[in-house]
Amino acid sequence: MRIGICAPSTPFTREDAARVTALAFSTYPAAELVFHDQCFAEAGHFAGPDHERCAAFVDMANDSNLDAIWFVRGGYGACRIAQDAVAALRSAAGDKIYMGYSDAGNLLGALYRAKIGRVCHGPMPADIRRADGESAIIRALDWMLHASPQALEQHVQAGTKHAAFNLMTLAMMVGTPLMPDLKGHVLMVEEVSEYLYGYDRAFFHVTSHLQSAGLAGLRLGRVSDVLENDRPFGEGTEEIARRWCVKTGIAYLGRADIGHDADNKIVPFGLATSSAAT
Amino acid sequence: MRIGICAPSTPFTREDAARVTALAFSTYPAAELVFHDQCFAEAGHFAGPDHERCAAFVDMANDSNLDAIWFVRGGYGACRIAQDAVAALRSAAGDKIYMGYSDAGNLLGALYRAKIGRVCHGPMPADIRRADGESAIIRALDWMLHASPQALEQHVQAGTKHAAFNLMTLAMMVGTPLMPDLKGHVLMVEEVSEYLYGYDRAFFHVTSHLQSAGLAGLRLGRVSDVLENDRPFGEGTEEIARRWCVKTGIAYLGRADIGHDADNKIVPFGLATSSAAT
Repeated sequence: MRIGICAPSTPFTREDAARVTALAFSTYPAAELVFHDQCFAEAGHFAGPDHERCAAFVDMANDSNLDAIWFVRGGYGACRIAQDAVAALRSAAGDKIYMGYSDAGNLLGALYRAKIGRVCHGPMPADIRRADGESAIIRALDWMLHASPQALEQHVQAGTKHAAFNLMTLAMMVGTPLMPDLKGHVLMVEEVSEYLYGYDRAFFHVTSHLQSAGLAGLRLGRVSDVLENDRPFGEGTEEIARRWCVKTGIAYLGRADIGHDADNKIVPFGLATSSAAT
Repeated sequence: MRIGICAPSTPFTREDAARVTALAFSTYPAAELVFHDQCFAEAGHFAGPDHERCAAFVDMANDSNLDAIWFVRGGYGACRIAQDAVAALRSAAGDKIYMGYSDAGNLLGALYRAKIGRVCHGPMPADIRRADGESAIIRALDWMLHASPQALEQHVQAGTKHAAFNLMTLAMMVGTPLMPDLKGHVLMVEEVSEYLYGYDRAFFHVTSHLQSAGLAGLRLGRVSDVLENDRPFGEGTEEIARRWCVKTGIAYLGRADIGHDADNKIVPFGLATSSAAT
């Protein structure tokens, strides 16, 4: 399996790319990782200007010699190219797996909206930098190469529909041309590095937008590295999620095993054709 | 003129309320400031629980012995009560001025959407805490009592329509039941305490939502206390605003004299009946 890696948001380093390549070679020798040079480009905040990030993704997605596209890292930037990028895809793009999370959710959403490929919320090469990050990389490869049920988020069941996003990324996608139809889906959200008031506000926005979307329900992933405000918010992260779900008539289904950490499990978008290992 | 003051978001202090009252008494003795006790309530992040903040606003707005409602402070919380609050208003609420900015924009938006009262983006009592904050308080009173053309944002012209919001507050309002119709309006936005990537992302979201809203154009207020990221973004705040306007076909009209500071000028929502002093 040949896996193309590009950076729709922020840049990676050649040193970390080499570590990921070595890990893949030692654990899944059948996986050939192809890092696009654009992963190492820099233009201010971004891994190259919009047109360069867009072109790298489009070239790889349209390359029939690649079987998967792996987004190298989040950060910020995919929303600036996702609509143009998806509009430029051809038939070869439809046969691929696409994997990432966090800011890459903008591309997951736009691809899923366009019904292109097998879109998966899951670890990225940049997770190599986390404590125990190797396990995240191995899980992603395990899913891409072997569709291993151990890699799946535990609530994914064959015959049910799912989608997963970073909450703030989703808040900035709802109502835009990137947003897919999530009717009948279990929506999983996770968050990182926000104040609780910002998290609550994002829930206001997302649940306002999705209260009539026909969701099957919402599951809350991990909410990590919460920023400390000058006073306590007065509610915990799950209470907040549950309250907004009650207020907007969305079924709150409990927790999800996703987050900005090495334990982040795989959530394939849409109708699951296999179930998580129990 | 009797001005009712309540706290739809976060609490104020009796000491600062006394300072504002003394300043009003010495500069505009015709203004009687009525601080609702709810301004000093505390419940976690908020100035009392949702029902208490909502009731204080509704009681004051429906009180025919008050001529204006002045939101004491922003912070976060008005989005949680604005829809219910506006739905509970009766005819006495329609004769009033409503003034505030920042998080209070949720109520300005919901009131303007419901065509209730004379909605104004302008200073709040909490501005007393700023350097030269007295000038902001005096400007707000000058507008409420005398409709002084010196208090108006300089681009406000009779016969044209305006609205003004904090950018992030607006980003979380678009597409929700709080959002007013801004067709034909000059929209002014300002921002504070965001990373440039967050500011850029909010512009993506807001311009995506409003590109078909028929805006007369957008003006950029001050963008202050920008948070420092681990690397430069690569563009300035006005370049970012201009680029998103170009991309979405919204006319970029230049700067606006509003912001999270003591110089924040008044922007009455809707069709202006008078022009700013030149």
